[in-house]
Amino acid sequence: MKKLLNRPTDYVNEALDGLCAAFPGYARGGRTGRVIARAGGAARGQVGVVTGGGFGHLPVFAGYVGDGLLSACAVGEVFAGPPADVCADSIRAANGGAGVVCVLGNYGGDKMSFANACDEVEAEGIETRTEIVADDVASAPPAEAKKRRGVAGMLFAFKVAGAKAATGASLDDVARMANRAIARTRSIGVALSPCLIPGAAKPGFSIGEDEIEIGMGIHGEPGLERIKLPPADVVTATMVKRLVEDLPKASGQRRIAVLVNSLGATPLEELLIVYRKAAALLGDAGFAIARRYVGHYATSMEMAGCSISLLELDAELEALLDAPTSCPFWPR
Amino acid sequence: MKKLLNRPTDYVNEALDGLCAAFPGYARGGRTGRVIARAGGAARGQVGVVTGGGFGHLPVFAGYVGDGLLSACAVGEVFAGPPADVCADSIRAANGGAGVVCVLGNYGGDKMSFANACDEVEAEGIETRTEIVADDVASAPPAEAKKRRGVAGMLFAFKVAGAKAATGASLDDVARMANRAIARTRSIGVALSPCLIPGAAKPGFSIGEDEIEIGMGIHGEPGLERIKLPPADVVTATMVKRLVEDLPKASGQRRIAVLVNSLGATPLEELLIVYRKAAALLGDAGFAIARRYVGHYATSMEMAGCSISLLELDAELEALLDAPTSCPFWPR
Repeated sequence: MKKLLNRPTDYVNEALDGLCAAFPGYARGGRTGRVIARAGGAARGQVGVVTGGGFGHLPVFAGYVGDGLLSACAVGEVFAGPPADVCADSIRAANGGAGVVCVLGNYGGDKMSFANACDEVEAEGIETRTEIVADDVASAPPAEAKKRRGVAGMLFAFKVAGAKAATGASLDDVARMANRAIARTRSIGVALSPCLIPGAAKPGFSIGEDEIEIGMGIHGEPGLERIKLPPADVVTATMVKRLVEDLPKASGQRRIAVLVNSLGATPLEELLIVYRKAAALLGDAGFAIARRYVGHYATSMEMAGCSISLLELDAELEALLDAPTSCPFWPR
Repeated sequence: MKKLLNRPTDYVNEALDGLCAAFPGYARGGRTGRVIARAGGAARGQVGVVTGGGFGHLPVFAGYVGDGLLSACAVGEVFAGPPADVCADSIRAANGGAGVVCVLGNYGGDKMSFANACDEVEAEGIETRTEIVADDVASAPPAEAKKRRGVAGMLFAFKVAGAKAATGASLDDVARMANRAIARTRSIGVALSPCLIPGAAKPGFSIGEDEIEIGMGIHGEPGLERIKLPPADVVTATMVKRLVEDLPKASGQRRIAVLVNSLGATPLEELLIVYRKAAALLGDAGFAIARRYVGHYATSMEMAGCSISLLELDAELEALLDAPTSCPFWPR
């Protein structure tokens, strides 16, 4: 577990410089340079959509800034959320004069920083709404769903909110649409090995050479159980069962979007092995897979493992997923 | 270094099934199912472009099948090239009646299998040409450039040849254009940790916990030197210097495409740190970076490390890189 870096304290800033150098759609801003905004600025007259969080999960969070997607993003340190002033700067960068929706993963620090930031910018006349993504079914039982962490499924909320904002919808309508995506999204992850925070002497946790942890969080938060690594089809079946059981009950033809996401080191080959089984199981369970995404979408640096996320679609959500964006990390 | 798989002997076939299930543009074919072709079939009346090689490098090789890119791909076992009959089937799948160009990495087994396959299909009336990518500057000195291995720079040759074929160009013109891209492409890689072949008890090589190997091949072939891991900027400068020195001398404004590619476990954050430095050094050396690609393009499963590839552009090469394709692994 070795890293290509210079001084650990420069890791975030140098990577953000690289992001802006490599892809023309991004610009650094904010008083400390920790806001990633659209190079062309916020869309005038449209609702802004922002997020923010710890670093080390690219393309989450900052990578999803782009037309028809996020307006701006507040960037913290590796695995540590941004302070309130950076969050406030991200909201200002996202403000096109029609208010800003904050779409946040369910982490205490991120929520508190954005709550303080919203107070600050509301005093300046920027109206805000906040929607919290809590999609990780392994992190709390259904009765305590509000305690769940936000993981890869937040992509769906980002895309749906950003695409809705691009239609010229009102602040409340963009927030409602983000909320609708969130209510219909479920995720679960499995971890096979940890990642290393730049400058740390060793990983914050370890997993035995023949073990897997079902439901582990993207920062190594405890999962449901640690077991001897079973075949991929067994892992996949365990994950899909949890997700399907947790979705709200519905009847008729159910259409879903499926995201099979690498946490970092797990290669595309193995994501495809997992996708193949997940698709078969979801088909057996009566779902039509309308959209599928397989790749590196929400990572934890070089952590090995993967997550599966489901979004139960309706016609509007499906159209918003398909709406155009030039963001380099949103698939065509 | 743990893997999500079922039986190791099913790794390739299950991943190919997943590829075709997850992305609508691919279809399996050939007598043994080891040909990946375009779902819509070969373009009638156009030159076909094929490649082939060992598995475990996704999106290389099979992922680059698509309109305006490869017509078909012959898939072997993990890190072992396809047999001649699979190569012949891939050429047949690529044949639209105007001949087929084989664009191959410079590996003995792949070249021999395709040479035999070309003999077989020529006897059936399919005209072929073969162009060999040998872009890895670390694998042989300039005087022995024909001995160099083919690595990530083969993407450029795939794209240029596929885009040229889509214009309706002749067999010789497509081969010439692939050759022009190859002559102007240079790559170098660094490895930080090995990968694990499915079913193997341990990796085929190891790298000390504080070491990096400059110039290591994508299957762990020996590189130039093994040193104590320096800062990323030093690694990047070493790589860029080698590449620039190896490019044919030229004057005037030089435009290049740059690819910074993860070998697997190295995360996007670190690729961006490398890109940022490479871009600065190339600018200092007088190059204008006209196109840049940063991500997972040519991998070795969970190997940690990265490669840098340069393609020195002219107007036609630049236009062919930009030509449309719906291949999900070619960036927009």
